[in-house]
Amino acid sequence: MTGPGGAGLTVGELSEEGLLEIIQGALAPASAPALWPADSVPPGDDAAVVPAPRGAVVVSTDAMGEGTDFLLMWPAGVRTRGYDAGWKAAAQNLSDINAMGASSSALVTALTLPEGTDVAWVRGFARGIAGAIARLGAGGCRAAGGDLGTGERIQAAVTVLGDPGAGVLERRPRRAEDRDRLLAEGADLVHCQVLGGLVGGGPGWAAAGLRLLLTERAELERRWDALPAEQRPGAREIARAVRGQLRPRPPLAAGPAALAAGVLTLMDVSDGIGRDAHRMARACGTGASGGRVEDGRARTLTPWVADTWVAEVARPLGPVAALAGVAPEALVLAGGEDYGVVGLAWPETALPAGFTRIGRMLPAGAEPPAGHRPLPERGWDHFGG
Amino acid sequence: MTGPGGAGLTVGELSEEGLLEIIQGALAPASAPALWPADSVPPGDDAAVVPAPRGAVVVSTDAMGEGTDFLLMWPAGVRTRGYDAGWKAAAQNLSDINAMGASSSALVTALTLPEGTDVAWVRGFARGIAGAIARLGAGGCRAAGGDLGTGERIQAAVTVLGDPGAGVLERRPRRAEDRDRLLAEGADLVHCQVLGGLVGGGPGWAAAGLRLLLTERAELERRWDALPAEQRPGAREIARAVRGQLRPRPPLAAGPAALAAGVLTLMDVSDGIGRDAHRMARACGTGASGGRVEDGRARTLTPWVADTWVAEVARPLGPVAALAGVAPEALVLAGGEDYGVVGLAWPETALPAGFTRIGRMLPAGAEPPAGHRPLPERGWDHFGG
Repeated sequence: MTGPGGAGLTVGELSEEGLLEIIQGALAPASAPALWPADSVPPGDDAAVVPAPRGAVVVSTDAMGEGTDFLLMWPAGVRTRGYDAGWKAAAQNLSDINAMGASSSALVTALTLPEGTDVAWVRGFARGIAGAIARLGAGGCRAAGGDLGTGERIQAAVTVLGDPGAGVLERRPRRAEDRDRLLAEGADLVHCQVLGGLVGGGPGWAAAGLRLLLTERAELERRWDALPAEQRPGAREIARAVRGQLRPRPPLAAGPAALAAGVLTLMDVSDGIGRDAHRMARACGTGASGGRVEDGRARTLTPWVADTWVAEVARPLGPVAALAGVAPEALVLAGGEDYGVVGLAWPETALPAGFTRIGRMLPAGAEPPAGHRPLPERGWDHFGG
Repeated sequence: MTGPGGAGLTVGELSEEGLLEIIQGALAPASAPALWPADSVPPGDDAAVVPAPRGAVVVSTDAMGEGTDFLLMWPAGVRTRGYDAGWKAAAQNLSDINAMGASSSALVTALTLPEGTDVAWVRGFARGIAGAIARLGAGGCRAAGGDLGTGERIQAAVTVLGDPGAGVLERRPRRAEDRDRLLAEGADLVHCQVLGGLVGGGPGWAAAGLRLLLTERAELERRWDALPAEQRPGAREIARAVRGQLRPRPPLAAGPAALAAGVLTLMDVSDGIGRDAHRMARACGTGASGGRVEDGRARTLTPWVADTWVAEVARPLGPVAALAGVAPEALVLAGGEDYGVVGLAWPETALPAGFTRIGRMLPAGAEPPAGHRPLPERGWDHFGG
């Protein structure tokens, strides 16, 4: 068995302690002594102890597996480097904490590795975690340890903890009077993708990247040749799509800013705006969140999206969408793994920087808003989908 | 592909939502509404929000994979049922929280499943998690959500959060004066395996169970026939060993009790008493825990174990050890996955119920204590071992 990424030292040639040392070294920027105050316990014991100054902790977990969630070598000829995989494993969980309006405080990783994995790939993985934490603006997030094991495929299960702000942002409004007003009047659908100056991503770009990565190189070249010159994507557009897929950039300041601004609900866009907005509609419309049912009223909400917004964000996707063989509007409405945030706000709420009003969430049967279309409940189903 | 455990409905025949509903139903006892106070958020949103009344949270993660950490069908002819796998995935993490002197407050699971997995196995897995939480005495631990994905092998990464008590118990004494006294005088090595009336397990029993499970049935029968009748284990002893391996029983009241009693350090015995005691010796002897170094003094400690204790706990293991083809004392000293706790206490400390003094941790070069032997640094290395 040869390791992904080269002919260097493999995991099976090192002791567990040796490999741990390499991983801890690569994670060091996210586990500096200053991050661990007197009453906390850094990694190295049976468990870590992380401050929770608000008296509550936000928790989310996500696993990512080679062969299912990523390929070490994509049909298009691109490799997933360790750094990419570590970045994405961290980013998708940091995104969930952000979507609660919270700030990430600690991250643990259960990492399963085939014995033939290059140690350099593993070091890159740990550096990718630390890199995502630093570059996405989650500097208070501590690498708090984890677990190492062997298996046939690379598998990484990351759990991120977070500090709530003055409350959290759920999929439905927290206050009963907001829920009642929402079911009566509807609210604006709001969205934020890019914050903090990091380029890349945007609605539909990660899904376009996935389509490109999954297409054989020869087929991409055939399509390229068949496209009129003015419709061919440039190298920067292709890179934006591929990087959107391999290294997503959740806007980690957006969640806490939305909470402070009085945004009503928030989710991260992991499975496509259409599918996720419908999930939010169900959570709001039945008064149910996690099994809580309120008064049994079967009111429902429908998400609408503005034609102008769809056209505006689909336009720059045109050339990569053509190469990927898919309609740009389908990427915008159903593409997953963008890790922007989508939520609801009253028309009178002043939105934080970076947020846009992209549509309306209206009671079923309400007058269709002018210049809008219903958001289709299509999107990415990670499971059997 | 046929599912483990029968010919029922498989995971690939259900939607993600359908499977989630089944899992949530099975986890319901550990996620009842009463466990989620007003400011918390139950599973179903981007993340859960769990109370952390002490202003800090203890966190540990462990992954368990089919083919590496367990087999669906063992050579001995025993199946790992879903309930067993869920129980163990929860128990080994609840044990880590216990070893910090803390009480588990929430648990999340990232579960990877082949499409051919029987839905009944998955339901059993979730019931096993809820069963371990309830029967091991972790009633305050909330099932706080997770992640579902597909893969070639079953893989479960569980993360448990905990509430510290008045502090936590680390691998080295928390107070500087205790660390100094320990390096000068040594301390008693203390141990607790069974609390709360649950039978099964004990030092060496899980390792004996693993040896039995990994032996072909025909070979077990051959050995059985070759043993003198009075040396053959009874059905109850075999069941105790196998259940010790498949459903470990960490004594979850022992950690908080040890903290309250003034025990100095604590670890759970996951890799064998010998290996774990040497890890504790290194953590105490160098003043280092998780990279913290104190004054550069290269003092070291050596763990000693009382011959009488080894003989006493090895004796009942004799018959299963004979069938497993291994010396009972080796099982006691180097057997892993017992999930008892081992720690250090001053001679004058009154130990909580269930704890025993089993040896001494002494400065290197000290007079060998009468009736003791050095604890060998042998044990279970999960990785490359």
